[in-house]
Amino acid sequence: MSSDIIKEYCGVVGVYGSNIASKLVFLGLYALQHRGQESAGIASSNGKKIYYYKNHGLVKDVFNEQIISELKGHIAIGHNRYSTTGSTTNFSNIQPIVINYKKGQLAVVHNGNIPNAHKIRIEMEEEGHIFQSTSDSEVVLHLIAKSKKSTIEEMIIDAVKKLQGAFSIIFMTEDKLIAVRDPRGYRPLALGKLKSSYIVASETCAFDIVGAEYIRDIEPGEMVVIDSSGVKSIKYSEENTRKAYCVFELIYFSRPDSIIFGEYCDLIRRKLGAKLYEEDPIDADIVIPVPDSANTIALGFSQRSGIPFEMGLLRNHYVGRTFIQPHQSLRDFKVLLKFNPIKHVIEGKRVVLIDDSIVRGTTIKKLAKILRKAGAKEVHLRIGSPPIKYPCYFGMDFPSKEELIAHNMKIDEIEKFLEVDSLKYLSLEGLKEVVAEEKKQSYCFACFSGEYYEKVDLSVDKDIFEK
Amino acid sequence: MSSDIIKEYCGVVGVYGSNIASKLVFLGLYALQHRGQESAGIASSNGKKIYYYKNHGLVKDVFNEQIISELKGHIAIGHNRYSTTGSTTNFSNIQPIVINYKKGQLAVVHNGNIPNAHKIRIEMEEEGHIFQSTSDSEVVLHLIAKSKKSTIEEMIIDAVKKLQGAFSIIFMTEDKLIAVRDPRGYRPLALGKLKSSYIVASETCAFDIVGAEYIRDIEPGEMVVIDSSGVKSIKYSEENTRKAYCVFELIYFSRPDSIIFGEYCDLIRRKLGAKLYEEDPIDADIVIPVPDSANTIALGFSQRSGIPFEMGLLRNHYVGRTFIQPHQSLRDFKVLLKFNPIKHVIEGKRVVLIDDSIVRGTTIKKLAKILRKAGAKEVHLRIGSPPIKYPCYFGMDFPSKEELIAHNMKIDEIEKFLEVDSLKYLSLEGLKEVVAEEKKQSYCFACFSGEYYEKVDLSVDKDIFEK
Amino acid sequence: MSSDIIKEYCGVVGVYGSNIASKLVFLGLYALQHRGQESAGIASSNGKKIYYYKNHGLVKDVFNEQIISELKGHIAIGHNRYSTTGSTTNFSNIQPIVINYKKGQLAVVHNGNIPNAHKIRIEMEEEGHIFQSTSDSEVVLHLIAKSKKSTIEEMIIDAVKKLQGAFSIIFMTEDKLIAVRDPRGYRPLALGKLKSSYIVASETCAFDIVGAEYIRDIEPGEMVVIDSSGVKSIKYSEENTRKAYCVFELIYFSRPDSIIFGEYCDLIRRKLGAKLYEEDPIDADIVIPVPDSANTIALGFSQRSGIPFEMGLLRNHYVGRTFIQPHQSLRDFKVLLKFNPIKHVIEGKRVVLIDDSIVRGTTIKKLAKILRKAGAKEVHLRIGSPPIKYPCYFGMDFPSKEELIAHNMKIDEIEKFLEVDSLKYLSLEGLKEVVAEEKKQSYCFACFSGEYYEKVDLSVDKDIFEK
Amino acid sequence: MSSDIIKEYCGVVGVYGSNIASKLVFLGLYALQHRGQESAGIASSNGKKIYYYKNHGLVKDVFNEQIISELKGHIAIGHNRYSTTGSTTNFSNIQPIVINYKKGQLAVVHNGNIPNAHKIRIEMEEEGHIFQSTSDSEVVLHLIAKSKKSTIEEMIIDAVKKLQGAFSIIFMTEDKLIAVRDPRGYRPLALGKLKSSYIVASETCAFDIVGAEYIRDIEPGEMVVIDSSGVKSIKYSEENTRKAYCVFELIYFSRPDSIIFGEYCDLIRRKLGAKLYEEDPIDADIVIPVPDSANTIALGFSQRSGIPFEMGLLRNHYVGRTFIQPHQSLRDFKVLLKFNPIKHVIEGKRVVLIDDSIVRGTTIKKLAKILRKAGAKEVHLRIGSPPIKYPCYFGMDFPSKEELIAHNMKIDEIEKFLEVDSLKYLSLEGLKEVVAEEKKQSYCFACFSGEYYEKVDLSVDKDIFEK
Repeated sequence: MSSDIIKEYCGVVGVYGSNIASKLVFLGLYALQHRGQESAGIASSNGKKIYYYKNHGLVKDVFNEQIISELKGHIAIGHNRYSTTGSTTNFSNIQPIVINYKKGQLAVVHNGNIPNAHKIRIEMEEEGHIFQSTSDSEVVLHLIAKSKKSTIEEMIIDAVKKLQGAFSIIFMTEDKLIAVRDPRGYRPLALGKLKSSYIVASETCAFDIVGAEYIRDIEPGEMVVIDSSGVKSIKYSEENTRKAYCVFELIYFSRPDSIIFGEYCDLIRRKLGAKLYEEDPIDADIVIPVPDSANTIALGFSQRSGIPFEMGLLRNHYVGRTFIQPHQSLRDFKVLLKFNPIKHVIEGKRVVLIDDSIVRGTTIKKLAKILRKAGAKEVHLRIGSPPIKYPCYFGMDFPSKEELIAHNMKIDEIEKFLEVDSLKYLSLEGLKEVVAEEKKQSYCFACFSGEYYEKVDLSVDKDIFEK
Repeated sequence: MSSDIIKEYCGVVGVYGSNIASKLVFLGLYALQHRGQESAGIASSNGKKIYYYKNHGLVKDVFNEQIISELKGHIAIGHNRYSTTGSTTNFSNIQPIVINYKKGQLAVVHNGNIPNAHKIRIEMEEEGHIFQSTSDSEVVLHLIAKSKKSTIEEMIIDAVKKLQGAFSIIFMTEDKLIAVRDPRGYRPLALGKLKSSYIVASETCAFDIVGAEYIRDIEPGEMVVIDSSGVKSIKYSEENTRKAYCVFELIYFSRPDSIIFGEYCDLIRRKLGAKLYEEDPIDADIVIPVPDSANTIALGFSQRSGIPFEMGLLRNHYVGRTFIQPHQSLRDFKVLLKFNPIKHVIEGKRVVLIDDSIVRGTTIKKLAKILRKAGAKEVHLRIGSPPIKYPCYFGMDFPSKEELIAHNMKIDEIEKFLEVDSLKYLSLEGLKEVVAEEKKQSYCFACFSGEYYEKVDLSVDKDIFEK
Repeated sequence: MSSDIIKEYCGVVGVYGSNIASKLVFLGLYALQHRGQESAGIASSNGKKIYYYKNHGLVKDVFNEQIISELKGHIAIGHNRYSTTGSTTNFSNIQPIVINYKKGQLAVVHNGNIPNAHKIRIEMEEEGHIFQSTSDSEVVLHLIAKSKKSTIEEMIIDAVKKLQGAFSIIFMTEDKLIAVRDPRGYRPLALGKLKSSYIVASETCAFDIVGAEYIRDIEPGEMVVIDSSGVKSIKYSEENTRKAYCVFELIYFSRPDSIIFGEYCDLIRRKLGAKLYEEDPIDADIVIPVPDSANTIALGFSQRSGIPFEMGLLRNHYVGRTFIQPHQSLRDFKVLLKFNPIKHVIEGKRVVLIDDSIVRGTTIKKLAKILRKAGAKEVHLRIGSPPIKYPCYFGMDFPSKEELIAHNMKIDEIEKFLEVDSLKYLSLEGLKEVVAEEKKQSYCFACFSGEYYEKVDLSVDKDIFEK
Repeated sequence: MSSDIIKEYCGVVGVYGSNIASKLVFLGLYALQHRGQESAGIASSNGKKIYYYKNHGLVKDVFNEQIISELKGHIAIGHNRYSTTGSTTNFSNIQPIVINYKKGQLAVVHNGNIPNAHKIRIEMEEEGHIFQSTSDSEVVLHLIAKSKKSTIEEMIIDAVKKLQGAFSIIFMTEDKLIAVRDPRGYRPLALGKLKSSYIVASETCAFDIVGAEYIRDIEPGEMVVIDSSGVKSIKYSEENTRKAYCVFELIYFSRPDSIIFGEYCDLIRRKLGAKLYEEDPIDADIVIPVPDSANTIALGFSQRSGIPFEMGLLRNHYVGRTFIQPHQSLRDFKVLLKFNPIKHVIEGKRVVLIDDSIVRGTTIKKLAKILRKAGAKEVHLRIGSPPIKYPCYFGMDFPSKEELIAHNMKIDEIEKFLEVDSLKYLSLEGLKEVVAEEKKQSYCFACFSGEYYEKVDLSVDKDIFEK
């Protein structure tokens, strides 16, 4: 993915039943930092009252020992988020959102995207509701508060049944932790156990960091309620709903050490690399990944092809977000801040450069140029997924269609634009073969194919709330 | 008032029609800093979109040139607020609150207290509304959003007619500034003009700092709408409503250089001091105020009595809020941090110590002791207002009845408790005489008399939302 | 002094013999905040090792409970300082300066100005010494380190005997506190006692805040050594040296509640006011001080003249240092941020406006204008000290001669420039009469008279180190 | 090296002749961030005056656009430093150190360690010099200032000739940049060119980030002077001095993309890996590095052995320094924060785990355990360098001998302690063979062999200045 940034909607964690619940959630968020670096928040409950704290920044910068100690109680939920910058930015969008409603207090963290949220919102505004953020989560809270059902579990089901799209949500009342996943299961959500506590998180790497054990995924269309009487599972959606696991979580977004949709994420990436070679066996001297996201795709490619795997680009991990401006005299500044070629590895070599995907193509173009300047004889670009041509309405924040290079150009045009010696994408067929025979029918490939498994009501413009 | 803190509900400012609207509001808030030191916020509009920024801290610390420059547009409103401390405190309570509703965006700042807000809130929660703060202002926004009326002006009137109690509110839509004052006029709200701009503020000292001219008060029961077509006044309440200007604004809360309820605040205080002497002519050597709030009461006392006015207590103005802990070995630490006696002034003197009011009595007790240690022969305490015995439901945040010393003790008991040679309060009658013959019928004296001019629905506990 | 800022060289505090030494020093610095608002620092020692912390900012902002607790030990010294701003400013200038030298560690805090410091410095540079700050204190440290004497007491005496000018210095070794005052005693330095601890400070108000008792001043030419064997006094200068107490400390700089040079500072100011009237009896309606520095001068004027004392200017104490820029459309912005006239007090009145001194005259000119706009019929300016015409080489940071209005204009020209109805300064003779018969020969009046009691070697330009 | 931290003494950069000199230095420091993460500083000169700014923190956090813009001029030097933490830490130790001395101003940044610095310092203290930091650099500045030579170049040579040990120093006067490397060349220092500017830096990766070209190393015993008349080289040491390049820079410390001592650092590491296999051919299923420092050693091992290279440990790059405390219930907390095993890669495999070196052994022990828990059948630990048994006096901050595991245990004991199936270190002979035939006589292997090429005067305890 090099540095064409995809902004996903967050990572979520919840813990029930630990006297260090907020600390465990903190650690979970820390492990999920890759899912959102702009803001972080934690809400906790001691059974009676909900406490919370949230702010702009990385998890490690937002929280300290003092704040964690003020987040009392045996239940806690947390959230990492991307957001736009600027000092006047809407603070209300940072999650958890904590509200009062007729039953008391309710906190929510949400990963996903709900395409009909804006439509519901406009309807509710017409009825006299007010909205303080531009997040889908607030819409969900309104739906719950409006429900005529009598228990919070029923109210939540009542609400989420009205939602389209992707949502992996964790709710917290004063005394319950409730996790819900949308009927198609676009975004991951897993259940774990740490001694007598339960933990729910976007990815299993959040379990590993606290030593918790992965039990199973929260199922698509399932609600799991955890309280003093234990764990209860409720299936709220129709049985035969076609699932739509986001295949992009496996390709790029999730951490390689996570189990996603029941798959070892990292293992899938190796297979993508192998398949990529099989589809177009090439003769070259070395295979180089764009670090770190394409590392194991490249490893798979190398192992299958026998072409030696090499680390030819060094990544600088100290990159901050608000950064000093480049100067016009400094060419390729932004790419060089992040990547430096290792000359002796590249010099005189026919290089296969592996990336997981291409969005705009601007960064990979510069990387290819840098490799050539470092002495590469040939640069063959291989992409571990098919061309991204279509927007995602379910939580992957691709740029608009117009900015997607594969939407605008054919592959040979892209090859020419990027100035590489050759360019191959993994075929959609190839991708499907990789992601497990038996599960092929469970994934969403819409950004590649344009085939959405859900009709999205886009009558209202997505950015309407931001004006 | 020495340091028995009364937490009032805020100061508000609004500006329409200036290309430096947010800077003018900033300066206004700066002049109103005494009305709330815990948080500050400004929202602005360029006619199309509302920008806002708010945070914990003093006005001068929350804002900087960069933030002010991002608060674009020709309309702006701002708010100073007190709030409880702690890092996990509800950020949502900081004002302005900015929402989306069926008509677009709406921002609000509010000074006052609405006793039936909690009741309305519970009703609305029952109907399915959610609340993100514990502030009355959010209730008002819900009422507006729910109104079936067609214009924002009508919707606001529809909403505020449902409210009891005290509210001086400034609303901002994308293109209008709307100021509303409750029918009894508990809290002040004044209208000023600066060239072609209009300015609305809690106190006229906010006009002085920007060189604006005081025009008149927003009347009790009046709504003033300022937009591109000019200034429009709407009377929305019944004509004969008994007014209830908070007399405590004059006694203590407002800045002495402000014109409040049409009165020179500072002038009233001098009269309080004169009357205080007249009611009990005493022979003494010097008159000393508790600085700074009782300064001109003491001046009035001195001028009327001929007893020399003296500055015998020095006040340290560098006091911060979050402060280093005292040590058990440091006696009278907290009072000494704020006040230091000037010995040569006090030594061997019969001192009349003047304060504006007594709440708990703990600080004034220590001050009297300090004066005696500094050599005062006698300490006669004179209070420029009657004993505070009753709670305020209209925005003056006295402690609970149980903590009010005059609720629990008779005057001679208080005298003994404070260990002063004599103690006299101004009589309620005396206070009434001071505050202008013709306006006597316009003030609220309830904290002294227990006579409320409005029936307050207290069926629901005030702190219910905070749990 | 209105807002023509005089930057003095600091306040100092030292404590020996308390298990909360650094906390006591913190409180002392807090009481001395008026002597320097730009940076603060504390060094402490547990008998073995010196700890220190210093930073830009007010005392209350630089320190917190955590830092104070890290400043361990039973000895501590501290410093408030003014300094120029800018992020690239020389941090090394913040005091205490802590060094290693042949005897171990040595920390120093310094109030005053040493005119021959630059000359000594250049000589020492020639010998091969290096300097990391531009402060005089570093020069003193070099002199001590170079001394061939055997004890630290002798080394310090050896060093300070080479110094001209003003210095009230507190040194701390690992196990001693040593206070030294220059032979003429330009700057104050007092000794106090708190139970079994000793405290040394620029002003006695630092004793009051911790409940310590004033014992006596450190005498001009005296060194006081406090260690485990008690308090030892050493006179190091010639007996008959003409003293030169800075009279400006009494007029303006010290806190009114301090005892300075054995005088009640506040009492002197009253006498200045009385004398000011006596020298030119005027008929007027009210007397108004420029708050807060001229408060008791005005009180003295009023009491002597019978003209009522009034508070006609309100001072805003929330003023910060780094402030939002004014806008060209905001007239008198900077003065209005700090002062607001109280109209009803001023309107139609013949006003005597009292200030302690005039430096440049720009602020007082604006204040006079503001009073007139507020309705004053006449504005008569009375200054509680003679015209400042000459530079101070001993610690009072007046602007250059060229900027001193009284250096450039005669009194009637100043009167015209300030646009006041009349202007009178206190005569030098009058000032001398006020400051105690028996002590008249002990003060320095050089800024008024040009008579310096010490020959100052100004062969090297003062700002040479700053380039 | 896993997380047994080696604290090296810093990275340095200097630029001459660019109108964005301080920005180029900033970028260079950013590329050298791995050499010190605790503090950063830059000094610049416009030919007349030296500006500087330094603070605790990462380069990206210490500087911003505003500060960089205040660091004016065409010359600049910068420094990254490790230091101990704590708010009361000696700020004076942060570099650059900027002083005034007889010739004007002088700024210095220093990488290395000077064993006789403390002895010189004590001698100078005896002569009356004072020291404000505990850094060797201040000693060098004193020596320069004391020199009787007439030009700064001569003075510097005069000074550095008195020094033992390791120093790569960059000086800046108002108008010159002067780089000096010690006669044995322990630490790297390279010279580059960017258009008409010159750049000097610890590692060539600082050239790459700004697009500069590597020219050559500053030679051991060479001083390079850059000013308006161009670049001048002076050899100041005896010709036949035995060089002593720190081999550990190649093994672990430098960035793999840097050219160090004329070698491609990354290439050497591959050879270390290959040699490691050759010395003890082992049969296993996979080779795993401790990321990132052992990555290419593992790659070399894999390529030579044919055992597949795998990424079995994922490293979290968001780790901050001041971190939330673990909880006793969280086992292996600190290792899990940084590394997570990828189970499917490890499960059932015979793993060769590669690290570059072992210091204390505590982290690698936990990593081995984690691998086993993740299902590794066998864990064979291979170390890309010989056992570290001896202290380094030349800038590599190993713990004390007592804490070095290889100082205390034989290899089979270490194997047992670490609970690995087998442990092999690279032999010293093997290491020597790798680092280039012709250069074997130029390296320092003392930490492995105990053979120092320089007699170190350790009569004074190293930590004497810290007490």
